[in-house]
Amino acid sequence: MPIARVTRRVHFCAGHRLHNPDLPDDVNRDTYGLCNNPSGHGHNYDLEVTVEGEVDPVTGYVMDLKRLKALLESRVLGDVDHANLNVDVDWLSGLVPTTENLAVAIWGRIESGMSDVRLVSVRIWETERNSVEYRGG
Amino acid sequence: MPIARVTRRVHFCAGHRLHNPDLPDDVNRDTYGLCNNPSGHGHNYDLEVTVEGEVDPVTGYVMDLKRLKALLESRVLGDVDHANLNVDVDWLSGLVPTTENLAVAIWGRIESGMSDVRLVSVRIWETERNSVEYRGG
Amino acid sequence: MPIARVTRRVHFCAGHRLHNPDLPDDVNRDTYGLCNNPSGHGHNYDLEVTVEGEVDPVTGYVMDLKRLKALLESRVLGDVDHANLNVDVDWLSGLVPTTENLAVAIWGRIESGMSDVRLVSVRIWETERNSVEYRGG
Amino acid sequence: MPIARVTRRVHFCAGHRLHNPDLPDDVNRDTYGLCNNPSGHGHNYDLEVTVEGEVDPVTGYVMDLKRLKALLESRVLGDVDHANLNVDVDWLSGLVPTTENLAVAIWGRIESGMSDVRLVSVRIWETERNSVEYRGG
Amino acid sequence: MPIARVTRRVHFCAGHRLHNPDLPDDVNRDTYGLCNNPSGHGHNYDLEVTVEGEVDPVTGYVMDLKRLKALLESRVLGDVDHANLNVDVDWLSGLVPTTENLAVAIWGRIESGMSDVRLVSVRIWETERNSVEYRGG
Amino acid sequence: MPIARVTRRVHFCAGHRLHNPDLPDDVNRDTYGLCNNPSGHGHNYDLEVTVEGEVDPVTGYVMDLKRLKALLESRVLGDVDHANLNVDVDWLSGLVPTTENLAVAIWGRIESGMSDVRLVSVRIWETERNSVEYRGG
Repeated sequence: MPIARVTRRVHFCAGHRLHNPDLPDDVNRDTYGLCNNPSGHGHNYDLEVTVEGEVDPVTGYVMDLKRLKALLESRVLGDVDHANLNVDVDWLSGLVPTTENLAVAIWGRIESGMSDVRLVSVRIWETERNSVEYRGG
Repeated sequence: MPIARVTRRVHFCAGHRLHNPDLPDDVNRDTYGLCNNPSGHGHNYDLEVTVEGEVDPVTGYVMDLKRLKALLESRVLGDVDHANLNVDVDWLSGLVPTTENLAVAIWGRIESGMSDVRLVSVRIWETERNSVEYRGG
Repeated sequence: MPIARVTRRVHFCAGHRLHNPDLPDDVNRDTYGLCNNPSGHGHNYDLEVTVEGEVDPVTGYVMDLKRLKALLESRVLGDVDHANLNVDVDWLSGLVPTTENLAVAIWGRIESGMSDVRLVSVRIWETERNSVEYRGG
Repeated sequence: MPIARVTRRVHFCAGHRLHNPDLPDDVNRDTYGLCNNPSGHGHNYDLEVTVEGEVDPVTGYVMDLKRLKALLESRVLGDVDHANLNVDVDWLSGLVPTTENLAVAIWGRIESGMSDVRLVSVRIWETERNSVEYRGG
Repeated sequence: MPIARVTRRVHFCAGHRLHNPDLPDDVNRDTYGLCNNPSGHGHNYDLEVTVEGEVDPVTGYVMDLKRLKALLESRVLGDVDHANLNVDVDWLSGLVPTTENLAVAIWGRIESGMSDVRLVSVRIWETERNSVEYRGG
Repeated sequence: MPIARVTRRVHFCAGHRLHNPDLPDDVNRDTYGLCNNPSGHGHNYDLEVTVEGEVDPVTGYVMDLKRLKALLESRVLGDVDHANLNVDVDWLSGLVPTTENLAVAIWGRIESGMSDVRLVSVRIWETERNSVEYRGG
């Protein structure tokens, strides 16, 4: 059977502040610049999740995208959409909400929900200009 | 001389919470839904500003876009980019930071900076799906 | 109170065939070209609906977009999404499903659902290159 | 019959230099900045042309877009695509190739080709951030 | 010589219905949901084809994109554009026209047309939210 | 530590002419077609640069994007933006300015500026339809 990759792109909007409480304030300002603004800011995030698997000869699907959509809604979007990533999301607790940390955490939220397919990429566009991709490992 | 319209599109990211402190909490929740989340959220905003004027026969310009860009940076973006619209921007003070109120307020910030051209539209896309346009009046 | 315009953009995918049964086959082929293919084809349509009204001084809204979204879903998207516009949609019955006819028909479906605001534009992008806008009248 | 607007979006790439030979070099540099670079630069231009007319009750069309496409190719794109706007296009001769002058000139190239419809807008995006719209008059 | 990858993106619109005639109707409905609508629907598809090869030291090209464009038109677009994927395309005959099956079939249509370059990816976006990539094997 | 990839997308506009002075004129015309126009043309280029590295456990960053942005501005954009790629850029001297050659040259300009991260991809979109990716080697 051919192996193909299926990508689902979803959107969410969230607030965040980049700040590591273990660092002095001036180091936080130097490291995060405008993103360290004490009252926070936010983004429209684009999240692209890619899975890989055999194309089922009966259905012609690698994975029913309704299932992937439902998994993303229950495990990710329900928590992060219209939320503040610093305070509202328990599975981000203790992390500076950079796009890198967010991508790794989202991978952890959804990998166990995969059956018959393999998660190969979690990519997040924080703005039209900046993105992070995590491929596991 | 022909009359033409020139549009400059800029981007900023900001946090906000939709909440009117003069209303009871349950009315706020009913009115603003997820956008009333107490710890806020945020967006990548696209702002499109359109001016109208004669095409200068010598320069071929309605308005030097470097001047419009500089006006937007000094009067709008310097205040709202990477900011929290509820607390960081004095010219939004006392307003619920809906896209409508934001568009009207931005009009007020830049209209007086126009010389020889007429401001005709301030349009803001809060997400790829929702936008507000204010044309004065 | 300031008057502003609010736009909601939604998406649907549908099949159609451009064919007028009152015309001879060769005229249909000349008029509609590839779009007259007997077994039909389809598109991802982008629908932009714009309403105009006063910005409510209490809520900061022209119209709650959740209401506009619900109106579009119940009166338009529930019928046309994943449908064949020639045979599945009773309010398109008897019309050649051009983008023009579709825009006028969608206007008719939603205008009566407006309260306190005025419908000013229904715009449909059939492809990234072609769109139609209907403003009533 | 309902009146609707139809927009066709096309693309072309071209080189140009903003420079008015009647002005001193230092004024050219002040006026046009980087765009005055002596060896020129270029853009991918998006051109949106909008016409307005009655929806034909037989065809459901305002205007056959194949005709508008052919008009744009023969009167505009054949001359400007992969061209240098300062030297290759006779109908731009003597004009500084700003987006404003380009929009007005394109209007002049296509208005006489309209039958039964009215040209209402020529809009050009020079970059994702800057556009000019000419509506005649 | 450096090895580089060149991608050509093309567009087509087509109708389809997801339905496997070997399965009972209720299984088809459960499997394909709205996409099983008996009269079909359709999409604007974006097709991205990537090839890899040495950058020719004389031309600076991996492959003349005019050749890739011509190959895609003659082998793919001429058959699928403005077509119904269930009935109009002989090389899709017997396949459920999912994006997965479409990507694998397009690979088969163009791989033999490659000379001096290697086909590395066929990616299809069915909507802005869903895509499939096939890399052979 | 998890390994992630960070992409920064920037834009520039430039003019160019595809022409190899070592080839006869007719071969240049056959090879480059419209792109061989003697007076040149131009594009809005999108440049995507991807680096890979460990996510720093203290900052949550693979690489501070402000540093990547500054590197791209000083080593690439300052030279190519609003320039003519055939004559204005010394590090392109002697090269036909195809997108392939441009990608390889940009890789050479920035690779040595990476510390703690590994450059994995330079991708350039010359138009919305054509792109080239160089991954080194």
